[in-house]
Amino acid sequence: MSRETRSRLVELRRELHAYPEPSWCEFHTTSRVVDELESIGVDRVALGDDALDPAERMGVPDDDELARWREAAAERGARDDVLERAAGGLTGAVAVLERGDGPTVGLRVDIDALRQTEADGDDHAPAAAGFRSENEGVMHACGHDAHTTVGLGTVAAVAESDFAGTLVVFFQPAEEVVGGGRPMAATDHVEGIDHFLAVHVGLDHPTGEVVAGGDEALSVRQMTAEFVGESAHAGAAPQAGRNAMQAVAAATQNLYAIPRHAGGLTRVNVGRADVGSAPNVVAAEGRIELEVRGGTDDLRAYMTTHAERTLDTAARMHDCTVTTETLAVAPREDSDESMVTAVAGAADATPGIESTVRRAPLGVSEDATYLMRAVKQDGGDATFVVLGTDHPGGHHTARFDVDEETIGLGVDVLSTVIRRLGGEETG
Amino acid sequence: MSRETRSRLVELRRELHAYPEPSWCEFHTTSRVVDELESIGVDRVALGDDALDPAERMGVPDDDELARWREAAAERGARDDVLERAAGGLTGAVAVLERGDGPTVGLRVDIDALRQTEADGDDHAPAAAGFRSENEGVMHACGHDAHTTVGLGTVAAVAESDFAGTLVVFFQPAEEVVGGGRPMAATDHVEGIDHFLAVHVGLDHPTGEVVAGGDEALSVRQMTAEFVGESAHAGAAPQAGRNAMQAVAAATQNLYAIPRHAGGLTRVNVGRADVGSAPNVVAAEGRIELEVRGGTDDLRAYMTTHAERTLDTAARMHDCTVTTETLAVAPREDSDESMVTAVAGAADATPGIESTVRRAPLGVSEDATYLMRAVKQDGGDATFVVLGTDHPGGHHTARFDVDEETIGLGVDVLSTVIRRLGGEETG
Amino acid sequence: MSRETRSRLVELRRELHAYPEPSWCEFHTTSRVVDELESIGVDRVALGDDALDPAERMGVPDDDELARWREAAAERGARDDVLERAAGGLTGAVAVLERGDGPTVGLRVDIDALRQTEADGDDHAPAAAGFRSENEGVMHACGHDAHTTVGLGTVAAVAESDFAGTLVVFFQPAEEVVGGGRPMAATDHVEGIDHFLAVHVGLDHPTGEVVAGGDEALSVRQMTAEFVGESAHAGAAPQAGRNAMQAVAAATQNLYAIPRHAGGLTRVNVGRADVGSAPNVVAAEGRIELEVRGGTDDLRAYMTTHAERTLDTAARMHDCTVTTETLAVAPREDSDESMVTAVAGAADATPGIESTVRRAPLGVSEDATYLMRAVKQDGGDATFVVLGTDHPGGHHTARFDVDEETIGLGVDVLSTVIRRLGGEETG
Amino acid sequence: MSRETRSRLVELRRELHAYPEPSWCEFHTTSRVVDELESIGVDRVALGDDALDPAERMGVPDDDELARWREAAAERGARDDVLERAAGGLTGAVAVLERGDGPTVGLRVDIDALRQTEADGDDHAPAAAGFRSENEGVMHACGHDAHTTVGLGTVAAVAESDFAGTLVVFFQPAEEVVGGGRPMAATDHVEGIDHFLAVHVGLDHPTGEVVAGGDEALSVRQMTAEFVGESAHAGAAPQAGRNAMQAVAAATQNLYAIPRHAGGLTRVNVGRADVGSAPNVVAAEGRIELEVRGGTDDLRAYMTTHAERTLDTAARMHDCTVTTETLAVAPREDSDESMVTAVAGAADATPGIESTVRRAPLGVSEDATYLMRAVKQDGGDATFVVLGTDHPGGHHTARFDVDEETIGLGVDVLSTVIRRLGGEETG
Repeated sequence: MSRETRSRLVELRRELHAYPEPSWCEFHTTSRVVDELESIGVDRVALGDDALDPAERMGVPDDDELARWREAAAERGARDDVLERAAGGLTGAVAVLERGDGPTVGLRVDIDALRQTEADGDDHAPAAAGFRSENEGVMHACGHDAHTTVGLGTVAAVAESDFAGTLVVFFQPAEEVVGGGRPMAATDHVEGIDHFLAVHVGLDHPTGEVVAGGDEALSVRQMTAEFVGESAHAGAAPQAGRNAMQAVAAATQNLYAIPRHAGGLTRVNVGRADVGSAPNVVAAEGRIELEVRGGTDDLRAYMTTHAERTLDTAARMHDCTVTTETLAVAPREDSDESMVTAVAGAADATPGIESTVRRAPLGVSEDATYLMRAVKQDGGDATFVVLGTDHPGGHHTARFDVDEETIGLGVDVLSTVIRRLGGEETG
Repeated sequence: MSRETRSRLVELRRELHAYPEPSWCEFHTTSRVVDELESIGVDRVALGDDALDPAERMGVPDDDELARWREAAAERGARDDVLERAAGGLTGAVAVLERGDGPTVGLRVDIDALRQTEADGDDHAPAAAGFRSENEGVMHACGHDAHTTVGLGTVAAVAESDFAGTLVVFFQPAEEVVGGGRPMAATDHVEGIDHFLAVHVGLDHPTGEVVAGGDEALSVRQMTAEFVGESAHAGAAPQAGRNAMQAVAAATQNLYAIPRHAGGLTRVNVGRADVGSAPNVVAAEGRIELEVRGGTDDLRAYMTTHAERTLDTAARMHDCTVTTETLAVAPREDSDESMVTAVAGAADATPGIESTVRRAPLGVSEDATYLMRAVKQDGGDATFVVLGTDHPGGHHTARFDVDEETIGLGVDVLSTVIRRLGGEETG
Repeated sequence: MSRETRSRLVELRRELHAYPEPSWCEFHTTSRVVDELESIGVDRVALGDDALDPAERMGVPDDDELARWREAAAERGARDDVLERAAGGLTGAVAVLERGDGPTVGLRVDIDALRQTEADGDDHAPAAAGFRSENEGVMHACGHDAHTTVGLGTVAAVAESDFAGTLVVFFQPAEEVVGGGRPMAATDHVEGIDHFLAVHVGLDHPTGEVVAGGDEALSVRQMTAEFVGESAHAGAAPQAGRNAMQAVAAATQNLYAIPRHAGGLTRVNVGRADVGSAPNVVAAEGRIELEVRGGTDDLRAYMTTHAERTLDTAARMHDCTVTTETLAVAPREDSDESMVTAVAGAADATPGIESTVRRAPLGVSEDATYLMRAVKQDGGDATFVVLGTDHPGGHHTARFDVDEETIGLGVDVLSTVIRRLGGEETG
Repeated sequence: MSRETRSRLVELRRELHAYPEPSWCEFHTTSRVVDELESIGVDRVALGDDALDPAERMGVPDDDELARWREAAAERGARDDVLERAAGGLTGAVAVLERGDGPTVGLRVDIDALRQTEADGDDHAPAAAGFRSENEGVMHACGHDAHTTVGLGTVAAVAESDFAGTLVVFFQPAEEVVGGGRPMAATDHVEGIDHFLAVHVGLDHPTGEVVAGGDEALSVRQMTAEFVGESAHAGAAPQAGRNAMQAVAAATQNLYAIPRHAGGLTRVNVGRADVGSAPNVVAAEGRIELEVRGGTDDLRAYMTTHAERTLDTAARMHDCTVTTETLAVAPREDSDESMVTAVAGAADATPGIESTVRRAPLGVSEDATYLMRAVKQDGGDATFVVLGTDHPGGHHTARFDVDEETIGLGVDVLSTVIRRLGGEETG
């Protein structure tokens, strides 16, 4: 990759970083993706309900929230045609590049940000270099700004190459709420894909390292639980209340205490609670957001069963009721050996890649597994590639950042794999 | 009281009910109080920092919140002169009526509403009769609309009577956050008050009953606790977090379990919790609002000590820190026998009062106790009067309402006491 | 009372103190009571199923335990005739003194000790003076040694007086497990009692003070809860367990957090837990002993309802089952005004009594309430007398002790009341 | 192995099964082991402080307990000479068989039983066939009866073979309390061992399967925590107590909720609690037995740190103190590839072995790791062999049993490995 291309990609990444948008609200980001795709000159860009099946979406914010972000995107100059197609949270895009006879290769990058306030100290590069998030409380704290950039860079590199075949790139929205993978997997864009690559930066792998087959994505279920009790004057009639606060506390304590499982890893987290109204009122209502994960779908089911029982009994313990709703689900799907070999070969051939790991556990959940599963069920093979990057803070923390060197390296590795899958001779 | 006066007071109460304002935001309510006082023709109305000591206020909302309510009040037609004096949350008023030589009598009524959504069913009279709260999420759920009305009706009745002396009426803001009593008690309006009456409707006493001496107001402390831990990816690195959610749950469970005390009644409530950000992130921060109460100031101190230890150890248990801040404090102050006798005598003489109770425990907290204490320390005597009213729902619940019959009865009883204290012959 | 009598009573109390026996195991104590009654010369002593209704007993230990204590009593020289009647835990006695025409007066004293290890420091008088408990782990930590002595002293004093009527004295076993009052109340010894006195020392009243009417005995229910889950290897298969330990912990935390009640005082305590087997085994079974109390029978019912729901949901939360069993129940029963007046008069007339309190809340539970209720239902009147005593440690603690001065004072007050009820002229 | 030998070994196992002895109390078992070793004709049998270092023992019961079991063993016919050496809990034996020049091979089998009541239904073979535990409440629920038998059978088989070298067999006591491995590893019997084998039956591997290298023994720490508060009358003065029961409940709930760790597996269990005295007394004392485990020693340290903080803060939360004491510790130690190959080869050559697994995680903890570590540090190699056996109930449950077929198979595999290590030609 030329120094110039690299520098342009870094600039693009910084632009995306400075304007992070949460899941299903990636209006401006989608608009910028479309700009870039057009400037590259792809054959087709699917948007809105052409890019995903609206009915399969999960975790979509309410209309007000969607409207606010759409409006903000418009003010910042997002394209009207894109905003119209994306209305109501149909964000994201699928780009198709046709280059004659050859296999169909799929690539998935995700584009959304997190509801996390970004660090503002001088030791945080985006703050020091002036591209810290302008959307206070939202942050690219998981590197999807880099993913989007790598995806666009790869399309450009493949477009300029001798690749023979079709490249389908999924610019997926709403990965952070595990919401965008399933609706994209439900479209006919996945049909006929012979080889599929999903990609993620970091995950504690250093710059210069590539994992050819990320495995063991944690099977995950995220949900809400709404507790309803009855309010009462906390001084005059505490016995008249049915205390949703106590129900939430009992549930939380016991959720974390669900027995560990000898069959593999399990996770549980209550990440958000919004309960009650005022100190002198017995809380009538409480809402928590929680998740369970497992090393396999069965282990996730084990955790789900226990979590639901815990929520239910905690509610009844305090004479409340509870209603749960699933926010998101993603299965585990491992990488295929054939694709691991393909990616490892390309990585080994890429200058700057110093370490190629064939397989490693991901340690996180991913709804790219829906796309992987769909491709595999259709006869294709798939892998999940990790592009190592030195990151000063952990994923999902205020000081997360990527080593921008990774962007060029990632484009090089991915475009090499794709070109080779599309018939280019192996060096 | 004439049927006409009674009907006018009911109309006024309904107007106030329909436009409830939360603590320190009673801009429109204060403006209406001043209107009425002027139409009655009192001698002085103190506003802003003449009515209360700004430095002694507690629980004041942030500037944005104050500005929003002030603006709304202006739009609805509140007087500019009042809004200016009340700017920054200096709401409330002190009215002084001078009628020659005689004792100085103080009366306190509170004027603020609660952050509570009002019921909207046909079985809820304000909804059925069309004066349900127009400020969604705020409600006169404790009868302060009636208190304000009774205060104004009493001023009018005394003004028209042969009362000899001075009447000082405190239209106190921010009782619900236990925030307005102390700053009013810190002004020189309390100086020289010989006899003092505070008043509350309901508290499970029926229409037609008067409690001449409400006693045993619960000594109360309300506070916030801010827990700070560290966020982490709940799937990839749960061990890297320091979980504020777990700290909050442990604190909450154990706060309610503070040992009961054989020395008298105690209360504890965690009424509000706002913790964490998203289901897949270990919660880095959590804020709770809680209160402790005791039958005496010592019992409140017992609860405070235990609560603080519980908060501190719960935080440390989960490797978090916690910072507490006091929102409000109110002491217990009982009624003086002399004033109990005075009120009981007036109640017995009032047509429509079917039951006079000399003394009864209040069962709630009250920051009128600051005013009572100040008057007593200055040599005066004081009492807390409960005007019974049939209320369909409990205090602080969505279906609270007052029996409007109570308004006229309350004015009759209070004006009779005041007139008698001011020298009128006892019938 | 003569100095000699007083000194003999102190000696007797020390003898009883040194050989404390737990509830239903008072074999030696009963034998000593009978010795003393015979030496006084009462008319009848009812024992075994003549003294109580075996079917109404609660909290009886198992046969092994009973046999062990009986054997120990025999070794120490208890009378065979008494041991035979008391076999199987039919301990206690009812003494009847007939002195011609006149009212029937009942007196109840309790005789059992607690399972509590006695202090052995020099600052604990029984240890310093050589009459510390010889039955390690059992202790007269509630003053029933003094009660027994006062009961015997009173019989002797009345026997020597001009009392006209019948005196029935209940030497009640098993008060500490709230187990002996009901079976004694179920016999015909309560029939025809015109006036009834129960008695307790201390309760934070000092030596020289008498409470003529102890009121508001806490209504109490004691119970066990047996949790059953399933064991598992805690390392190899934690998920295979159903953890009774977690169920017990969840239950305990939430039991203490049952909402306080504005209607009066409530209590809850989990005083004993015995759970699981070894650190590396998931606990399959757990047993707890708990109690709830209320200021009234209704408040106790409120606590019982909440406690049972908490136990049940805590068990189900951890996939366990739970079975509860009632150990003991005692109601509240207040003192009659007529008897309060009688006792207060006698106390006022007794040298050494410096303070007579007509009524005071007891603050504890008492199964003498069964006897009081039975007498009252039969047309008699009743009271619960507290004989103040300076006690260095609290009731039920290792350093509890009585001021022996109280014994003589108690006999003087009680025998005076009884003599007056039996027709003696009031001095 | 001859049918006769096999049948004799089964008989021996049943004899051992019927007389299980808990850790450090294996007096009779040790005596029987010595009998058998003498009948085989080994060169040396080390006992008492020749077999282990008394100072390194952990989890030794009190003297009364030891004396009781020793006496019972004597009554049942245990040898005086053995009992004398084993006095005070110096149980176990080390047998040395010298067969000329060649390597020194070590073998470790453990001999103790668990405190678990054995099933008595007809579907439990030991009950049906008449060799159910005679020591009620103690049971060979982990197969150590089979281990002991396999150890003796192997000595006999090797003794009769052409083995050239020295065989050292550790009949280790107190594995169940993780207490016997360390003191045996501290003797000079481990010096000079070239190859070392530890052995365990079952662990969910079926009869006919052998795991040549059991790995990933869970690193474990077991400990006690003693909470001390202050008792109080639960009705009269709940506020005067410092409640050890609440401290235990808070600790337990939060111990199970220690965050999972992405670095590998963790475990925590509170397996035993003994708290308080009676339902009406605030618990002054509570003792729990708990354990933490980790997939590595570091993960165990992570759990220990969190557990200690949880215990400490839970105690302070309820104004109690807590003292912890370590009962047992065992590290993780994996198998050496060289020995895995040796065992796998022997297993493959053994008729009846249908499945040879080179390596598998153990899933449990083992203090054989101390012996393995000592041998490895001294330059030898080591492995942990699992002999599959169909077991109807899980380890440590009432219905655990071994398939007796495993005994002969185990002897065959182990003696083959040892003979080959000692120079025998590989068939």
